[in-house]
Amino acid sequence: MSHSATDSVDDIPLYMQRLGARARAASTALRALDSGRKNAALTAIVARLDAARPALASANAADLERGRARGLSEPLLDRLALTPARIDAMLAGASQVAALPDPVGEIDGLRYQPSGIQVGQMRVPLGVVGIIYESRPNVTLEAASLCLKSGNACILRGGSEAAASNAAIAACIRDGLRDAGVSEDAVQVVETTDRAAVGELIRLTASVDVIIPRGGKSLIARIAEEATVPVIKHLDGVCHVYIDAAADSDKAVAIADNAKTQRYSPCNAMETLLVHVEAAPQVLPRLAAIYRDKGVEMRGCPQTREWIADAVAADETDWDAEYLAPIIAIRVVEDFEQAVDHINRHGSQHTDAIVTESVTLARRFLAEVDSSSVLVNASTRFADGFEYGLGAEIGISTNKLHARGPVGLEGLTTRKYVVFGDGHVRQ
Amino acid sequence: MSHSATDSVDDIPLYMQRLGARARAASTALRALDSGRKNAALTAIVARLDAARPALASANAADLERGRARGLSEPLLDRLALTPARIDAMLAGASQVAALPDPVGEIDGLRYQPSGIQVGQMRVPLGVVGIIYESRPNVTLEAASLCLKSGNACILRGGSEAAASNAAIAACIRDGLRDAGVSEDAVQVVETTDRAAVGELIRLTASVDVIIPRGGKSLIARIAEEATVPVIKHLDGVCHVYIDAAADSDKAVAIADNAKTQRYSPCNAMETLLVHVEAAPQVLPRLAAIYRDKGVEMRGCPQTREWIADAVAADETDWDAEYLAPIIAIRVVEDFEQAVDHINRHGSQHTDAIVTESVTLARRFLAEVDSSSVLVNASTRFADGFEYGLGAEIGISTNKLHARGPVGLEGLTTRKYVVFGDGHVRQ
Repeated sequence: MSHSATDSVDDIPLYMQRLGARARAASTALRALDSGRKNAALTAIVARLDAARPALASANAADLERGRARGLSEPLLDRLALTPARIDAMLAGASQVAALPDPVGEIDGLRYQPSGIQVGQMRVPLGVVGIIYESRPNVTLEAASLCLKSGNACILRGGSEAAASNAAIAACIRDGLRDAGVSEDAVQVVETTDRAAVGELIRLTASVDVIIPRGGKSLIARIAEEATVPVIKHLDGVCHVYIDAAADSDKAVAIADNAKTQRYSPCNAMETLLVHVEAAPQVLPRLAAIYRDKGVEMRGCPQTREWIADAVAADETDWDAEYLAPIIAIRVVEDFEQAVDHINRHGSQHTDAIVTESVTLARRFLAEVDSSSVLVNASTRFADGFEYGLGAEIGISTNKLHARGPVGLEGLTTRKYVVFGDGHVRQ
Repeated sequence: MSHSATDSVDDIPLYMQRLGARARAASTALRALDSGRKNAALTAIVARLDAARPALASANAADLERGRARGLSEPLLDRLALTPARIDAMLAGASQVAALPDPVGEIDGLRYQPSGIQVGQMRVPLGVVGIIYESRPNVTLEAASLCLKSGNACILRGGSEAAASNAAIAACIRDGLRDAGVSEDAVQVVETTDRAAVGELIRLTASVDVIIPRGGKSLIARIAEEATVPVIKHLDGVCHVYIDAAADSDKAVAIADNAKTQRYSPCNAMETLLVHVEAAPQVLPRLAAIYRDKGVEMRGCPQTREWIADAVAADETDWDAEYLAPIIAIRVVEDFEQAVDHINRHGSQHTDAIVTESVTLARRFLAEVDSSSVLVNASTRFADGFEYGLGAEIGISTNKLHARGPVGLEGLTTRKYVVFGDGHVRQ
């Protein structure tokens, strides 16, 4: 067993380099592991966690107690709690990942070229993935499952509040990997809560291929700023719904309601509603009644306030705000172009929707709005890996390179060229 | 006309920011340009260049004269020269790019999800591409063509030796863009030879989406080190051919000859030959005769030197060397595993080949060798965009994220999620 809980973590750079080297070595073996073996490992891990529920509960209780003593807020304590129902959901998630098709090894576009060679692209693991997250301990299993299934070794760094819970989950993962005959170094949990470990992890270019941060904007911004390893991320979700002059009013009201109020905190919730001046009379009074009823604070441009008397005046900062709260910014626009310009200027290239019956404008919206998800006549709330049929989600990316939008197993892989010849040489 | 040759370049940061802002604005229009218009622009550019041959010749003569006065080496002067034949090839290349299928707008995998929404992925331009290259002025048109066809605005920074040639080509490109009614800011050539401009370009995260450096290793290493914009690149091409015990000797000799000697300087030329101990008697004496005949210096491990008496002793540095010259490192290995381990340890994840008749080992080689191109029974020299059927190539990437291997039009695009509903909301 190369991994050892007795490794010194006094020398953080050395400790992280060793973690990285072990992960790199494990990734070589994982690359060649067949789907059956990876699924067997996931199943073994689920069985180990299921059998260890009492240990998980006491580890989590210790985290919660320490959290209360440190005065953590109730929402934070809630995120930290591993209730039996959450453990059920966590294990069900890992079993679902085992049931997903394995993306590794798929060869696309294999074609003969004029020289006689056959050329295609094969999907392969990225190698080593570093995941940095905050308090929710169930992310430990979720991230480990997705990385394992996609053939990647991973290094997981959870929040210090959840250290005992994460260590208990990590022990079960190691046991499950060993049960299935897979290297325990396939999943390593950083065993120090020292923040310096994060600084080292995001600069381990020799042994880490990508960093995926999950958490608040300040965490992600800091990581993106300091990392030399590539980062798959999104910072903001300033999402828009644009109700066009040619919108069906009922669809428009249903979508603008759902996108804002179905849940307030997710990154794919609408923050700004744009309404074509010709649609305003039909939709704004109806929407205002709904938002008022649900306690949503409305902040509008002057034209909006002609239709919604109790809306407060929006200022320029509202167009760039990610409220993640029962607040909405509303702007009346003169035409389609102004709406698209507003979105490309103030949006975060996350998720934006148009409501229109016009095929022409729907086509234009898809081409001209430069966001990771662009929707026609559907709520922005659909933008996640499960709703998109990915089966799972490690996060949402607003990067232009590599994975864009919800990231599932495929986003944890890359493609290399494969060539088949029969002694072919280049002329 | 927003672009102006009279812009001051005294303040480099300000100058580069303005270039970036103009490129970003142009990219918004390019994103929505249909294939016909992009092809018309390419055709107009080719016509303008064809008509400007005398101007190109005199600009290039000025560069050559200045180069000779500065004592540039003959190979450098040769790369700098725009002969009539090279101009022909350059224009033919741009016409070929116009004839390629347009990758932009292609929607993959559009499927209904259980909620009733349809979800797919649409291929879209990256946005703004910065290309930094050395002396060859034909790269100016090549890079501009590929970026334009893929819907990207570009900022081109060529070598200072080719400043007059690049400016003459850039003028024709601007004229051609104007002829076709496309924003002249779609292709901008940096008009200062001050190196500080490169430093600014690679940090323009607000307006540049990706940097593609083309040139020597030291240039690329420096850019990769300092850039905050993502870089698509490769540093080394330490490419291997592994001749397995189950190799057909004739194919093995033909491939190992071609991979080394067809041309010495390309990054996909073989640098190290690995030979299974059982194949050594059949292939090493035959290959030695060929290499000796062609003047290739052989550097071998002790076992190699038992078969090739005139091979010099290789030391550890030879296994990591990218010679790009008539020198080859040769190592006899005990088994398949040792060969794969050598490649993954000493290679540059660029291009590696196996010669074998064993289906089992071919499959394993594809899965276990972690390189951007992996070949079975074919020469490493095939690893380029033209031979792979991409129709063109902006470079070769050994990155794991985004594009890996030869990069054509598709590597200059990304995919966003598109969703079609009919008033769908999330439950």
